[in-house]
Amino acid sequence: MNPTGYSSKLLEKAVNEFSKLPGIGHKTAFRLVLHLLKQGKIPVFKLATSLTTLADKVKYCRLCHNISDNDICEICKDSRRDTGLLCVVESIKDVMAIENTHQYRGVYHVLGGLISPIDGIGPSDLNISTLEEKAASGKFREIILALSATMEGDTTNYYIYKKLSRFDIEITTIARGVAIGDELEYADEITLGKSITNRVHFEMTVSG
Amino acid sequence: MNPTGYSSKLLEKAVNEFSKLPGIGHKTAFRLVLHLLKQGKIPVFKLATSLTTLADKVKYCRLCHNISDNDICEICKDSRRDTGLLCVVESIKDVMAIENTHQYRGVYHVLGGLISPIDGIGPSDLNISTLEEKAASGKFREIILALSATMEGDTTNYYIYKKLSRFDIEITTIARGVAIGDELEYADEITLGKSITNRVHFEMTVSG
Repeated sequence: MNPTGYSSKLLEKAVNEFSKLPGIGHKTAFRLVLHLLKQGKIPVFKLATSLTTLADKVKYCRLCHNISDNDICEICKDSRRDTGLLCVVESIKDVMAIENTHQYRGVYHVLGGLISPIDGIGPSDLNISTLEEKAASGKFREIILALSATMEGDTTNYYIYKKLSRFDIEITTIARGVAIGDELEYADEITLGKSITNRVHFEMTVSG
Repeated sequence: MNPTGYSSKLLEKAVNEFSKLPGIGHKTAFRLVLHLLKQGKIPVFKLATSLTTLADKVKYCRLCHNISDNDICEICKDSRRDTGLLCVVESIKDVMAIENTHQYRGVYHVLGGLISPIDGIGPSDLNISTLEEKAASGKFREIILALSATMEGDTTNYYIYKKLSRFDIEITTIARGVAIGDELEYADEITLGKSITNRVHFEMTVSG
């Protein structure tokens, strides 16, 4: 859409700001801004305030680097969690994904990314030194590496493993296999191969 | 995504506000908010300010009901435009669409919707009385109805035609036909039929 057609500079500015968001093109931004205008002032102010408050007050947990409203996040603060079990993830999205499974009761360590020489991201750009300190503290009996099954994930797994293997801590990684609900014939060979190598004892509840 | 996994109330609030936008689900809202957070404070403040300023200061042109920064919009103010030619459209999106063709030099009248009994929208909810006043003023020689080719558009066309036919004004409607670039075999029968009935003299520039 040619921006010369705008009859309002204010509208044009709002649409331009909106279209800077990933996956939001000019037409979508225009549609969203017109929708907001139709709602009246209050919903617009609510959206704008929630964003500025977040940007202004956001903190990252001193212990696990997860996003938090306080110095220490709700998960690290929770006394019912197993503080001897540490799950290493790439980002706070992964914390939410794992939390939503309701299968994990340990604590987290958010790396803030993966080692990726092509993008210029080295170990020093990630929260790896604090992970080493945690390992050295002797408070953890197991560290689970829950990173993506990509080249960057594998590189990071390997790097962390090398750093932590000198400590007396069990280092595990999440299981790879055929997803529940997936058909075998559509699984890729590597995943299917892994799922056979790492087979587990049959239990009636395994796929439920 | 289960909202119980949020480690920050502020994050949750921003995501909730974002996901109220049409076509933005919870996952997309989460992704957009995290993207904004990564950009730092300034871009977030810019987006928020542009939205609140727009909601606060937006005006609608006293003459054509188009969105505007002033009492009278840039188009109505423009002395180079043909003020005897009036184009009736549903919304300000249509004004922009027509402006971007650079084929129209008259002025506009934005109805603010279409007559739709099913949605409870009657003629009195639209800017039709001001359109009648314009017709009665004797300042316009032609009124172009440029509404959608839907049932609501046809109903509105008919209603406006009935209201305006008593004035000595030529009332026209935009041409319907096979879109440029479209193949005949994929055009629907009604459009194709219209395009044959309303055929025009061949000119070498017609499809360029």
